[in-house]
Amino acid sequence: MCGGIGSRFWPYSRSQRPKQFIDFLGTGRSLLQMTFDRIVQIVPAENIIILTNNSYRELVLEQLPQLAPAQILAEPARRNTAPCIAWAAYHIAARDPEASMIVTPSDHLITRENEFLRIVRQGFDFVENRDALLTLGITPTRPETGYGYIQIGDEINAEFHKVKTFTEKPDRALAETFIRTGEFFWNSGIFLWKASAIIQAFADCAPDISRVFQTGKGVFGTPAELYFVARNFPGCVSISIDYAVMERANNVYVETASFGWNDLGTWSALYDISPKNNVGNVAQQCRVLAYNSTGNIFAVKDDKLIVVDGLNDYIVADAGDVLLICPKANEQKIKQMVNDAKVNFGDKYL
Amino acid sequence: MCGGIGSRFWPYSRSQRPKQFIDFLGTGRSLLQMTFDRIVQIVPAENIIILTNNSYRELVLEQLPQLAPAQILAEPARRNTAPCIAWAAYHIAARDPEASMIVTPSDHLITRENEFLRIVRQGFDFVENRDALLTLGITPTRPETGYGYIQIGDEINAEFHKVKTFTEKPDRALAETFIRTGEFFWNSGIFLWKASAIIQAFADCAPDISRVFQTGKGVFGTPAELYFVARNFPGCVSISIDYAVMERANNVYVETASFGWNDLGTWSALYDISPKNNVGNVAQQCRVLAYNSTGNIFAVKDDKLIVVDGLNDYIVADAGDVLLICPKANEQKIKQMVNDAKVNFGDKYL
Repeated sequence: MCGGIGSRFWPYSRSQRPKQFIDFLGTGRSLLQMTFDRIVQIVPAENIIILTNNSYRELVLEQLPQLAPAQILAEPARRNTAPCIAWAAYHIAARDPEASMIVTPSDHLITRENEFLRIVRQGFDFVENRDALLTLGITPTRPETGYGYIQIGDEINAEFHKVKTFTEKPDRALAETFIRTGEFFWNSGIFLWKASAIIQAFADCAPDISRVFQTGKGVFGTPAELYFVARNFPGCVSISIDYAVMERANNVYVETASFGWNDLGTWSALYDISPKNNVGNVAQQCRVLAYNSTGNIFAVKDDKLIVVDGLNDYIVADAGDVLLICPKANEQKIKQMVNDAKVNFGDKYL
Repeated sequence: MCGGIGSRFWPYSRSQRPKQFIDFLGTGRSLLQMTFDRIVQIVPAENIIILTNNSYRELVLEQLPQLAPAQILAEPARRNTAPCIAWAAYHIAARDPEASMIVTPSDHLITRENEFLRIVRQGFDFVENRDALLTLGITPTRPETGYGYIQIGDEINAEFHKVKTFTEKPDRALAETFIRTGEFFWNSGIFLWKASAIIQAFADCAPDISRVFQTGKGVFGTPAELYFVARNFPGCVSISIDYAVMERANNVYVETASFGWNDLGTWSALYDISPKNNVGNVAQQCRVLAYNSTGNIFAVKDDKLIVVDGLNDYIVADAGDVLLICPKANEQKIKQMVNDAKVNFGDKYL
C-alpha cells in the first residue's frame, strides 16, 4: 500500500512525492523501494501488487521498474485502507482462489530483516491452514503513545494468540500499564490471510464495501476490471481496515514479533531512530553548523548548509519552495499548517 | 564605492553577489541601483565613477548598463576605503584639476530624497569655495550604538560646522548622553570635497598612501592607469578614510542633515526600518505563515513559503544552498559563522 500523502512530514513529504517515495534514511532507496526489497525475498516479484493512488502510478513505475504496469492497482480516489485491501483481495482471488497474501504499508522502517522474514514465513504457514486474519504485533520496547496496541488473548502457541482487544493511541499512564502487563503489543498494520478469508470477513463485518466488490465479481483479472473500479471504487466509504474489519471480526489472531519496527509516523519518531551527531542533532542529507543547538532534526535536501544558533528540539524541514521551522513538541500542528497553506495559497505549496 | 563583501548579511549576501547588488528592499532595484538613481539627479551620468572590487566588474555593468566600462574602477585588491578614495581622487583630478566630488557608499538606505539632494547641492557649494573636507552628519533620532558619531565644533552657519571629534560606536549610556547634548550627529560616511583638497589631505595625513599615487601622477586618465594600479594598489595599507584622513586633518567640516538614513549595517537595522506584518515579522520576498512567532526577519528569495511556529526575534535567511537561523541578538556571531563555514567546507558556501 503506497497511496498516502504523508502530510505529517510536510513539506519534506509533498503531495507530488509523499513520504513513501522519499529516500528518508539517506540509503539511496526510498521507503517503498526498501519495502519491495524486503518483500521480494518471500513473494515472487511477479506476485507483488502495489496499491496506490492514481496520481502516483508513474512514480511507482519509476521507482520499481522491475514491475509490469499491470502489477500496479491505481485507486481512482482515496478511501483509506479497507477498500484498498478489498480490491487487492478480489484481484488476487480472481487469479488464485486459494492464494494467501501479506498486506504491508510501504512507509515503515523495519530492521533485523531476517527475523522479519522468519516471522512472515511462519505467518503464511499459519494462515494457509486456517480461516484466520493475522496481524503482526510488535513487542513494545517503550510506552509509546503514538501507536495502537493489541492485547493478546487465548494462546495458540508461543508466538500466536487470538486477539483480545485493540486500543488506539493510549495516554502515557495507560501505555505504561500496557507494557507492565506483558499482554500488549504494537499494532504494526502488517496483515496476513488467505484472500478468501478477508473477502469473507468483508462480507461479515463491512457489508457496504463487500457489496461494491461482489457486484464486480466476474471482472477482476479481466480487462474490464479498471473500468469497474473507476466507476465503483469511489462509492466505497473511506475507512481503515482496523475499524472496518479487524475490530469486528472474531477470527483475528496476532503473531507476536521482535524485529525492529517503526512506523515513521512523526518527525519525532524519525528523530528518535536516526543517528545523531555529536551535539544531538539529526541531519537528513544536509550539512549543519550548530551553535548552542541540540535535539533538532534537519530535513533538507541537496547538501544544503544549515547554520543554526540557539535552536533546540525543532524540526527544520526545507523542501526548496517551503521551509518549516516548528518545535518537535508541536508536530501535531503540521496538518493544520498544511491546511492553512492551502487556504492561503491554494495547491502551490502542497 | 561598492566593493564590500557584506558578510554581516551572509548568507543572503554572498561573496559572489554581496549586499549592494541585492534588491534588499524588494523594490525591483538593488541598493547600488538605488544609489545611482539618487546621485544621477545631481551628477551627470558620465561623471559617475564606480569603485569596486575586480570580481564585481561584470555585476556592476550588468546592473548599471548605462555606464561605459571606463567608468568602473576595479580594484585589484581589497584595501578598505582610503586607497579606494585616493585612486578616485587622482583619477578625477587628472580629468579636471578643479573638480569637486561626492563620495558615497552604495549600500545605504536614504529616504526623503529631495532633502538629501538639497543637502548635497549645498555641500557642493560649500566645498567649491573652500579647502574643506566635508562629511554629512545625520541628526540622530535614537541613541544608536551601532554608528559612529561626529561632534560639531565652531559654527560656520546653521548647517555647517567644523568637526570637533569623531567617536566610534559608543556604549548605550554614552550614546544617550550624545543625544542629550545636541552636539553629536551620525557619521554617514558620505563625503564632499574638491579632488585637489583630498589629494592634499592624503599628502598631509596619510603619506604612505599619497606616495603610492604620487609616483603615478602622469598615468591617471591614460591607458597606463590600470597597469599602474594593478602593480601599485595592492601595496597600499588597508585603512578606512576615517582613520587615515578624517580623524587627522584639521580642515574637516560637517554639514548636518535630517534626511532619512540607515547604513543597513545589520539584520536588526534592516528589521527596524522594514514594514512589519500584523504580528511583527518582516518578510523579504517571501510568504510567511507564522504561529506564535514575532519579531523575526525572514530573508528568503523566490516567493518561498516559510511556516514557522514558536520562533521569536530570529533571523531566518535562506540563500538556496545555505540556511541561517540565528537570534537577532546574536547577529554579531555571523562573521564567525562565515569563517567556520569556510574552515569546514571551503569556499562552497561563501
